[in-house]
Amino acid sequence: MKSKLKEISALEGIQSLLEWDQHVYLPQGATNARKEQMEALARVLHSRQSDPVLGEYLEAMSSVTDLSEHGFSEIELASVREAYREYKRAVGITPELQARAAALKVRAAVVWKKAREVNDFSMLAPYLQEWIEVLKEEAAAAAPEISPYDYCLDKFDRGTTTEKLDEVFTLIKEPLRVLLRRISAKSRPDRQFLQSMDLFSGSFSVETQKRLARRFAEEIGFCWDNGRLDESAHPATFFISGPLDVRLTSRFSETDLVAGIRASIHEAGHGLYEQGRNLKAYQEGLPVSRSAGMGIHESQSLLWERVVAMSEEFWDHYWPMILRSYSSLPNSKAEDFYKVINEVRPSLVRVEADEVSYPLHIVLRYEIEKNLFNGSLRVEDIPAVWNQKMQEYIGISPAKDSEGCLQDIHWAVGYFGYFPTYAIGAIYAYQLFDAAEIELPDLRKNLKQGVFAPLREWLRVKVHNTGSLYETPDELIKSITGRAIDPACFLDHLSNKYSGIYDLPSTDSRELILSR
Amino acid sequence: MKSKLKEISALEGIQSLLEWDQHVYLPQGATNARKEQMEALARVLHSRQSDPVLGEYLEAMSSVTDLSEHGFSEIELASVREAYREYKRAVGITPELQARAAALKVRAAVVWKKAREVNDFSMLAPYLQEWIEVLKEEAAAAAPEISPYDYCLDKFDRGTTTEKLDEVFTLIKEPLRVLLRRISAKSRPDRQFLQSMDLFSGSFSVETQKRLARRFAEEIGFCWDNGRLDESAHPATFFISGPLDVRLTSRFSETDLVAGIRASIHEAGHGLYEQGRNLKAYQEGLPVSRSAGMGIHESQSLLWERVVAMSEEFWDHYWPMILRSYSSLPNSKAEDFYKVINEVRPSLVRVEADEVSYPLHIVLRYEIEKNLFNGSLRVEDIPAVWNQKMQEYIGISPAKDSEGCLQDIHWAVGYFGYFPTYAIGAIYAYQLFDAAEIELPDLRKNLKQGVFAPLREWLRVKVHNTGSLYETPDELIKSITGRAIDPACFLDHLSNKYSGIYDLPSTDSRELILSR
Repeated sequence: MKSKLKEISALEGIQSLLEWDQHVYLPQGATNARKEQMEALARVLHSRQSDPVLGEYLEAMSSVTDLSEHGFSEIELASVREAYREYKRAVGITPELQARAAALKVRAAVVWKKAREVNDFSMLAPYLQEWIEVLKEEAAAAAPEISPYDYCLDKFDRGTTTEKLDEVFTLIKEPLRVLLRRISAKSRPDRQFLQSMDLFSGSFSVETQKRLARRFAEEIGFCWDNGRLDESAHPATFFISGPLDVRLTSRFSETDLVAGIRASIHEAGHGLYEQGRNLKAYQEGLPVSRSAGMGIHESQSLLWERVVAMSEEFWDHYWPMILRSYSSLPNSKAEDFYKVINEVRPSLVRVEADEVSYPLHIVLRYEIEKNLFNGSLRVEDIPAVWNQKMQEYIGISPAKDSEGCLQDIHWAVGYFGYFPTYAIGAIYAYQLFDAAEIELPDLRKNLKQGVFAPLREWLRVKVHNTGSLYETPDELIKSITGRAIDPACFLDHLSNKYSGIYDLPSTDSRELILSR
Repeated sequence: MKSKLKEISALEGIQSLLEWDQHVYLPQGATNARKEQMEALARVLHSRQSDPVLGEYLEAMSSVTDLSEHGFSEIELASVREAYREYKRAVGITPELQARAAALKVRAAVVWKKAREVNDFSMLAPYLQEWIEVLKEEAAAAAPEISPYDYCLDKFDRGTTTEKLDEVFTLIKEPLRVLLRRISAKSRPDRQFLQSMDLFSGSFSVETQKRLARRFAEEIGFCWDNGRLDESAHPATFFISGPLDVRLTSRFSETDLVAGIRASIHEAGHGLYEQGRNLKAYQEGLPVSRSAGMGIHESQSLLWERVVAMSEEFWDHYWPMILRSYSSLPNSKAEDFYKVINEVRPSLVRVEADEVSYPLHIVLRYEIEKNLFNGSLRVEDIPAVWNQKMQEYIGISPAKDSEGCLQDIHWAVGYFGYFPTYAIGAIYAYQLFDAAEIELPDLRKNLKQGVFAPLREWLRVKVHNTGSLYETPDELIKSITGRAIDPACFLDHLSNKYSGIYDLPSTDSRELILSR
């Protein structure tokens, strides 16, 4: 059984290499040829994942009520659980359905690009409709015991349900809207000076940015013996060979000093998770070495990007290095830089959103997805609902759909259920950081000195190496922090941080916490 | 059947991508993980190549005596022939034998590296012995109708036999030895000046070399929409997706102006062959679109590297560009550069050998391989025979095996039968160039003007696009040049070229031709 699981893991790594290559180095004339290679490999992989012999093994092992009596370790038990779960999902998806989804993905991605260009949602609508049908069919076959949208959520983040998200998002929605409104109402006396730093429209050597990005990735612990950083149109992380080969990509712009470095640290956070996987379990082909889902994965990237690298402590240490690297920067303090990069400014575009409004972009998408799947929203009504919710949650509304419901590729490629992981990850990130601070009292002092090993090793043991030992991310989080997902902790952090930056009356902050 | 062949072709392309990635970008800590991915993919590929359903189709089609009566085209007939040939080879190799060979390849490559470092052939000897046994077993299963060494030759170059090589190598061996001796006896009056150009121990910006290499690849017609050029420790060409994705790698040294550019043009020659493949046949998965074997492949790389890019005409056009690129070069003529890069100087090392002595390095290896397989030479006697033949053919002999029989990795990885393609390719190259010159009277004038399209298009139609339509490379060569492989043509060219460079009496040259 291990050899079969190991083969699946090897083929998945190959699949990831094909994707990475397509992302960074594929000659443009080879796009279709690569598509055929991906399809051929997907067929092979699916036949291995749904191999009936593997299924019999797994079923037999799962039916024994107490495998630990038979001398199996906790790690092996979790591996059987994970492998059986994946096997059942794979057998549910027929080759025909798989082929239909693959073809739809390619066609809809092309249409989405065009629709966004010409600002015409109606072009994309029939494809989204077809995705919903395909995913419902897939859900009915692969996981008839849960609702189709819960199946979509669970695909990216095991155990995530509409019930959980409804609860979490209800808790954060109102307080974030309140905080956002208070920040927006506040005019900052130092605004003009901060703008004069010109961090987002200056001229910053890309070579130097790349050097800095590599430096930061390395400082937080990314290991080049088992990974790479290349450039690509969209930052991403590719898992080629478990902890042994993890590839980051980032994007740098001459005019923007911050975006490329932030993206690189974000991806390096994903990379650290992968590099910290249980090597022995990986080498034995045991699925337990895999991440605990995309929510936890996102918590790792956001912990490093937002909690660490957007903190004042971090820049206390590194701002002088940036100043040395770019002589054109005006003389300024770490605190100035900290304030600029943490500016809260409502944006129409999710990927450009600040930390406070970002979760509201997600809540909006989640509510639309949920209602599409439960039948209370029709695809053609997406634009109207989108615009109305934008106004309601974030206070601005797009003049055209290309800056609204056409901005993300996710739905066009069938990634319904993915968006929530971004917000859930942000909540986990602060919750994990808090738990780390209890066990590592010098944590903030360390950040001020550019010392990251204690935090990284703590995460390595608690999160990275634990993989998917627990059945759900919440169980993992509970085992580490003593409680399940905790939106209050997230709100506390944001309220304190931005009350400080925007000099909000402390009563505001207290009131905000009470209002949840 | 086409869909099965297409799947095989897609999986082979993936295999090639894994190799390319290993060559250029794989993090060093992922070597073993990549090995496991390669093994997993090899098993999948082998199961597809030996798929009994495919075999039944192919057998049925092959047994019909006149498929053309059934409306099949010449291209489809050749595809059935090629596919059936490959199928029969694949079924001969059991998964056990394949696994044994794969493991041996990895182990022996490591031992070879070590043996070469410590200069101890006896470390490697048992592995070579095992390779001979493995290959004999493989040959007996896959092609019992021919001798094991003929099977090895045929693996890399369809239809190549000991009989053919004995004949060809006997014809060239003595004339090349005579030419080499005459050149060596000749002292050149301009030697000191040529050495002062310092082309192989100077200081030449690698960035500029890379730019020039890309320029030359492009000038001869390599298309970046369907290919790449990256750096690697060993120059090579990888066939990722037929004509749509061909990847060259090259190596550049700060001190050597010539090697990196030569290697890049060589690989671009391979690349042109692949980019010129029959696109329609490739897209239908028809094996006829593949190259006519490694001998013809090498003829394409050598035609561009040696016949074109080491000609005086070529440098008439490009030498000024080189002079402009490197201001440190002494004022000198294209003719000087031509003479330096074509210097004949016996070398112990094959890859550093000049054009005249190179085939003798191959003849030596061929004779050793042949005798190992027919039992007239024992593995432990390789070093003695190697050194004696070096002295006899090239006039020098290594003081240590690391510069002798341990210099090449080929045998350690089981590539017995590969070396001859290098010499055969050189002969084809000149023969094809001669045929092109008859049909393109302006050919040399074109080279003087940096105009390569007519030659490239001629090769595209005659060689690249024809693929493996003919059953053997000699049939292809005959269809183009009117005769089978012609060593006399090769000797003529070398004799004329080097008589000119070394100012040999013209009687020498005539005598040399007669002596064949």
